[in-house]
Amino acid sequence: MEEDLGLAGDMTSDTVVPDDACIRARLVARRPGRVAGLPAALSAFRMLCPQLAIVVDHPDGHDVGSNVTIATVEGPARPILTAERTALNILCRLCGIATATRTAVEVVSGTRTRIVCTRKTTPGLRVLEKYAVRAGGGVNHRFGLDDGVMIKDNHIVAAGGIEQAITRARRRLGHMVKIEIEVDTLEQLGQVLSVGADAVLLDNMTPEQLREAVRMVDGRMVTEASGGITLANLGAVAEAGVDIVSLGWLTHSAPILDIGLDVEPMPGKVPAAGECIPAPAE
Amino acid sequence: MEEDLGLAGDMTSDTVVPDDACIRARLVARRPGRVAGLPAALSAFRMLCPQLAIVVDHPDGHDVGSNVTIATVEGPARPILTAERTALNILCRLCGIATATRTAVEVVSGTRTRIVCTRKTTPGLRVLEKYAVRAGGGVNHRFGLDDGVMIKDNHIVAAGGIEQAITRARRRLGHMVKIEIEVDTLEQLGQVLSVGADAVLLDNMTPEQLREAVRMVDGRMVTEASGGITLANLGAVAEAGVDIVSLGWLTHSAPILDIGLDVEPMPGKVPAAGECIPAPAE
Amino acid sequence: MEEDLGLAGDMTSDTVVPDDACIRARLVARRPGRVAGLPAALSAFRMLCPQLAIVVDHPDGHDVGSNVTIATVEGPARPILTAERTALNILCRLCGIATATRTAVEVVSGTRTRIVCTRKTTPGLRVLEKYAVRAGGGVNHRFGLDDGVMIKDNHIVAAGGIEQAITRARRRLGHMVKIEIEVDTLEQLGQVLSVGADAVLLDNMTPEQLREAVRMVDGRMVTEASGGITLANLGAVAEAGVDIVSLGWLTHSAPILDIGLDVEPMPGKVPAAGECIPAPAE
Amino acid sequence: MEEDLGLAGDMTSDTVVPDDACIRARLVARRPGRVAGLPAALSAFRMLCPQLAIVVDHPDGHDVGSNVTIATVEGPARPILTAERTALNILCRLCGIATATRTAVEVVSGTRTRIVCTRKTTPGLRVLEKYAVRAGGGVNHRFGLDDGVMIKDNHIVAAGGIEQAITRARRRLGHMVKIEIEVDTLEQLGQVLSVGADAVLLDNMTPEQLREAVRMVDGRMVTEASGGITLANLGAVAEAGVDIVSLGWLTHSAPILDIGLDVEPMPGKVPAAGECIPAPAE
Amino acid sequence: MEEDLGLAGDMTSDTVVPDDACIRARLVARRPGRVAGLPAALSAFRMLCPQLAIVVDHPDGHDVGSNVTIATVEGPARPILTAERTALNILCRLCGIATATRTAVEVVSGTRTRIVCTRKTTPGLRVLEKYAVRAGGGVNHRFGLDDGVMIKDNHIVAAGGIEQAITRARRRLGHMVKIEIEVDTLEQLGQVLSVGADAVLLDNMTPEQLREAVRMVDGRMVTEASGGITLANLGAVAEAGVDIVSLGWLTHSAPILDIGLDVEPMPGKVPAAGECIPAPAE
Amino acid sequence: MEEDLGLAGDMTSDTVVPDDACIRARLVARRPGRVAGLPAALSAFRMLCPQLAIVVDHPDGHDVGSNVTIATVEGPARPILTAERTALNILCRLCGIATATRTAVEVVSGTRTRIVCTRKTTPGLRVLEKYAVRAGGGVNHRFGLDDGVMIKDNHIVAAGGIEQAITRARRRLGHMVKIEIEVDTLEQLGQVLSVGADAVLLDNMTPEQLREAVRMVDGRMVTEASGGITLANLGAVAEAGVDIVSLGWLTHSAPILDIGLDVEPMPGKVPAAGECIPAPAE
Repeated sequence: MEEDLGLAGDMTSDTVVPDDACIRARLVARRPGRVAGLPAALSAFRMLCPQLAIVVDHPDGHDVGSNVTIATVEGPARPILTAERTALNILCRLCGIATATRTAVEVVSGTRTRIVCTRKTTPGLRVLEKYAVRAGGGVNHRFGLDDGVMIKDNHIVAAGGIEQAITRARRRLGHMVKIEIEVDTLEQLGQVLSVGADAVLLDNMTPEQLREAVRMVDGRMVTEASGGITLANLGAVAEAGVDIVSLGWLTHSAPILDIGLDVEPMPGKVPAAGECIPAPAE
Repeated sequence: MEEDLGLAGDMTSDTVVPDDACIRARLVARRPGRVAGLPAALSAFRMLCPQLAIVVDHPDGHDVGSNVTIATVEGPARPILTAERTALNILCRLCGIATATRTAVEVVSGTRTRIVCTRKTTPGLRVLEKYAVRAGGGVNHRFGLDDGVMIKDNHIVAAGGIEQAITRARRRLGHMVKIEIEVDTLEQLGQVLSVGADAVLLDNMTPEQLREAVRMVDGRMVTEASGGITLANLGAVAEAGVDIVSLGWLTHSAPILDIGLDVEPMPGKVPAAGECIPAPAE
Repeated sequence: MEEDLGLAGDMTSDTVVPDDACIRARLVARRPGRVAGLPAALSAFRMLCPQLAIVVDHPDGHDVGSNVTIATVEGPARPILTAERTALNILCRLCGIATATRTAVEVVSGTRTRIVCTRKTTPGLRVLEKYAVRAGGGVNHRFGLDDGVMIKDNHIVAAGGIEQAITRARRRLGHMVKIEIEVDTLEQLGQVLSVGADAVLLDNMTPEQLREAVRMVDGRMVTEASGGITLANLGAVAEAGVDIVSLGWLTHSAPILDIGLDVEPMPGKVPAAGECIPAPAE
Repeated sequence: MEEDLGLAGDMTSDTVVPDDACIRARLVARRPGRVAGLPAALSAFRMLCPQLAIVVDHPDGHDVGSNVTIATVEGPARPILTAERTALNILCRLCGIATATRTAVEVVSGTRTRIVCTRKTTPGLRVLEKYAVRAGGGVNHRFGLDDGVMIKDNHIVAAGGIEQAITRARRRLGHMVKIEIEVDTLEQLGQVLSVGADAVLLDNMTPEQLREAVRMVDGRMVTEASGGITLANLGAVAEAGVDIVSLGWLTHSAPILDIGLDVEPMPGKVPAAGECIPAPAE
Repeated sequence: MEEDLGLAGDMTSDTVVPDDACIRARLVARRPGRVAGLPAALSAFRMLCPQLAIVVDHPDGHDVGSNVTIATVEGPARPILTAERTALNILCRLCGIATATRTAVEVVSGTRTRIVCTRKTTPGLRVLEKYAVRAGGGVNHRFGLDDGVMIKDNHIVAAGGIEQAITRARRRLGHMVKIEIEVDTLEQLGQVLSVGADAVLLDNMTPEQLREAVRMVDGRMVTEASGGITLANLGAVAEAGVDIVSLGWLTHSAPILDIGLDVEPMPGKVPAAGECIPAPAE
Repeated sequence: MEEDLGLAGDMTSDTVVPDDACIRARLVARRPGRVAGLPAALSAFRMLCPQLAIVVDHPDGHDVGSNVTIATVEGPARPILTAERTALNILCRLCGIATATRTAVEVVSGTRTRIVCTRKTTPGLRVLEKYAVRAGGGVNHRFGLDDGVMIKDNHIVAAGGIEQAITRARRRLGHMVKIEIEVDTLEQLGQVLSVGADAVLLDNMTPEQLREAVRMVDGRMVTEASGGITLANLGAVAEAGVDIVSLGWLTHSAPILDIGLDVEPMPGKVPAAGECIPAPAE
């Protein structure tokens, strides 16, 4: 919101829109999708005018079709129009992520595989984006570098090998921390199995390799497939029997869900409009 | 960075990677694209370890092919691996925007049209994303609600009409502020022309309508086309003669450019490794 | 407020004033002037005690005479006395600016000239001071370096000349940004007219020179007079026909309007006094 | 600085001034006065470009005449011009306060009276303004409500009388806190003397009343005169023998000292200009 | 609270506790002691759920026995359990300090000596810890380096002697600042008496030395004993006649008062439970 | 540091200590203990004067005897004396925690038991205190509510039973999160064993009960003893065979390690003293 208002505020609404004009504004999905992030988006309106009347038709987690009203905001026109872009930027992005997640979840339905997001999130929005994945039916992986150990290829290079990496980690970690390790080949997987770990990330493997990997692991670790997985091959990956598929594009490249704000004038004056116009102070 | 480190820091690098291990890490484009955001991405590494040796091969604004090294970072392994995800999240997103912008600019080359971004940016990243559009050859529209007046359809509804909206704005604005107004029809455009404005946004018009609009305006205002413009119809829109085409998807839905960090061990010890490991304080 | 309270809080009120004492406190103008900044000043009281009873007699924009009560605050004595100095420091300064602006506006009444403030504001208070200028009947110039281009003498030196400066700016700016340029002589004005700009600042010119400048410009640019303009010569400057006069002293040297807080005890106890005394926490 | 730059930065310098232009910029006093605040003002330049060459001719506490160069800044033109207004706004205000203080100190020279400022400071600038008073030869009163007890008329009203106020304060204060009390009449002074205090503020008294008050106190308390004291009557007040005169207008209404930035181009290129241009990131 | 929640929030309560479960939670002292910090502790609960029903049985300043309920919190289980540790960490520490202070105050009861704390407080908690000392019946010394002058042995070393130190301080301080100086021997005390000060800190002296010091001072300064004073020798120190005893261990080493949260389920649903669960946004 | 300096800074050092005085200051342990937190403490000095000469004799993790110098700081007297209390407050507390941890670790040496801290830390200092535990030879438990699930008695009450609690958690957690559950009786332990968990906290059990519990668990879960464990019974608890003992008093009630700053004057002037005295700005 700060980004948008700057010091001078919304020059358009403040000069163009009469102080006492009142509107009804509906958040309308232009395409079908899943709702996520509505509380965050509505808080942009509420921050500028606490007494707006807000009615939610489709809360987070609902699926909506084209031209369906998600929520309606009524009250003084200025704060609603000033907050419009901020609210839509948040909502469109989070609904986009939830919608993409839902699509992926549908593809794997009927298998044991769960859809998981990664740490490839937008700087500053990780908590919201991980929430949107949950709203879409997915599950969250680590929130950050501090809540679990994930030994990736670069760590193995720096540690000098798979065994050294796992052994070093195990010696120094508290009893509440799980260890997952990334492997690129079945040979590496064999090494991991001989040392032991809580989970293994099978990177860039074909469905056939994954199937063999699942067979080798045989329930001794959680199996996660990752790398180069699109909607086209997701079904085959899930059928290979992995526990988890992690998809970076859920958060880094999902297109937004197009949502607009449809406005109509409301008869009558604003009851206490002045209260909503922030005083010209910081 | 804070999102990723939390209180406990990078448990993986801190336990898996030896304190004195040294690596060479290359930022490598996995796909062709345009570089943007390299200083911001490299600052993530520098923040954790000021004395890293960094060599930039392709600065912002360069085009790179697949498997081309953009920059190389050398030094202690721990801070490099800890900053990896933060740096890549920023860089992949900004290169994605610059690459999408470059593609759009190429489509309109040979016409008078300039490619412009909108305020549909990621919350918190507006300045960086607008910069990435410039790195891609585009031009920036308003940065926020405070640096220019843009009267959109919802403002016209709230003000009671086009003439009222422009007149109200003009009376109250300082002499350094320009006024642009959105119209959906040529009839509305006629109203705007009779009142006057600095620029007009022609929303959701066909190339034929745009051509007629440009003819009606005849150089008296800047003309901007917007709404429903994809790479498929962008060429036709530009040939209609508008001054500017604004594309929201440059910033809200451009896919990231896939960039990875390729790591190899470096012989020799870290000269002053201890300096890079942040003391366990705030 | 933080500046005034420090860690230990208001030692005087907390030790001298009984916990349950109640007062009526009136903000009284000691001299005639125009009110500005009342919401900001009253928020200092409200921040310490949300349930104070506040009655505003003269809101921002009103003119008041000597010994006129602007607003009355009733409630527990401690928070009112603690916030007194902070509230008065803000109010006296903003009323001083509004009063000075009003005086200048009266001098130019009957001409086409508008009174404008500059960026010579108090560090940290720009938004409030610009608001006070509006409350005094003036108009705001740029809020900051980011909402318009103003090419001053030092920029011309650094750019290598008037033509180079304007040409460079025009090539790189978006379509919503206006360009103003400062000139010291009519010869420079001639150069500007041959290149074109949106506005021209005529610096340190006599009324005669200004009259000639207005004649030369002939409506093709907005004309702004600035530099060495006092109440004594403001009338002559306005009669020279410039569109705008900018006055730095409105914000950097206007004397405060003397306003005091007159207090009388109120019978009866504070209903819920404890609520107003901040708990000894952060 | 943030107020001035906003999100888009200094559009004028960034578009008008060549990337590699170099200038010599001198801070020149347009009127005689005392220097104060130079380190704060210069830090505005240094923040944008750490490697500027800065030479100080007249540090804080020096008196300068008209057209005297206070300090010279050399280096890349862009950051110097971007920081110009911020630096001058701070410097002009603080030199104005120091100059006003110096004038008051000169008026009382030869007497035992010291010039003291009050808490009537600009919100956000108290530390700097109190420093400027010291640079002008004055002494500081309390910094805030937390470093000493000052019982004013409104506190006496709320406490129920002079004796009650002093007694209440004394019972609850630590041993390191001094108590000062404001009186309007010699009768009130008598009451204070019978209870005892560390200092007494004699408010709005004539020089004759002050002389009588000093005689009554006879060295048992510090005496401070305040209220309605201008340069015209300051001499008479000091000669009445008070220890301290406090002057609110030193900080709330002193006019700025007019200081400008005179710029000339420097031959040669910027050695490492790129380092000074902040990358387009946060 | 931020320390405890991180990005992912309270994973235990959020997954284990049903959304609509309701509990009654009592803060129960496990040992006898004095209450301090209850408002700060309760605000941790209120911050997560504003509509909790809270009943306070023993406010700050009360003494409680073993197994006594201090306060009861009723409402949705999740926010109560999430805030539990934060609330208890604050409350146990502050009650520990208040209890230790009360014990010390009891030891000196019947003498003229007051118990005072020092600046040896926990970083970040000074205001709260000084408050807890007052709740325990003690008095506060300086809050920080800025509200009084305390010349310690190291200052005397750096200044070159007792006389130089006091003289330098006196010349440059405002009239509202008191001066205290630390002495280790009666000989040093003699030097201080010949120069004069407001208070003297008698460091590491035996009760006999203190008695002699009090005799030497004879009411001309406040006397403060400090250094190596435990509950064992505190009585003897007080009987030596000093005005003040300062005890660093009140704030730096007092053991916490053991307080627990006893929980029982409440029949019925949460009226508006959803309101308490913070939306997944920042 | 902010707590200590306020607005007016260190009035004592600034007025008592000559601007150019230079000292050698040694951090000296008054009692034997283990060093922890030296970098954080030294940063308090460095923040005020970056060019101090600092020599560390005993870094974090070293054991020191009485009267041993831990580190020496040389340079201008003012910033060293101003930072003294802040540095000592941090250092004494963290060394106190490390020393207490080391003592506990020694008691269990020779057994398989590891010493672990809890979330009963000082508000705002958790990261530093957990670090001090590691410096003392202990291991860290969870950093916060967000990095592992710990089902305590109150959660079981709210969830309706042990089985419900574990089942609910398991269904909703990602694959990287471990589950620990608290039990008070061996009967409850039996229930946990039938449902399964990663670790079990055995609360307030006697060594005999613990021995039986370890036997029942038989390596299927990590066993942790907690509650009422002091140095007196710690040995017996460890010999019962638990994997982990968690001790809240390491962080909430360990007495500080007494460390002082011994100062002696240094001949010669400060090379660039002025650089260290912060300019009178924010």
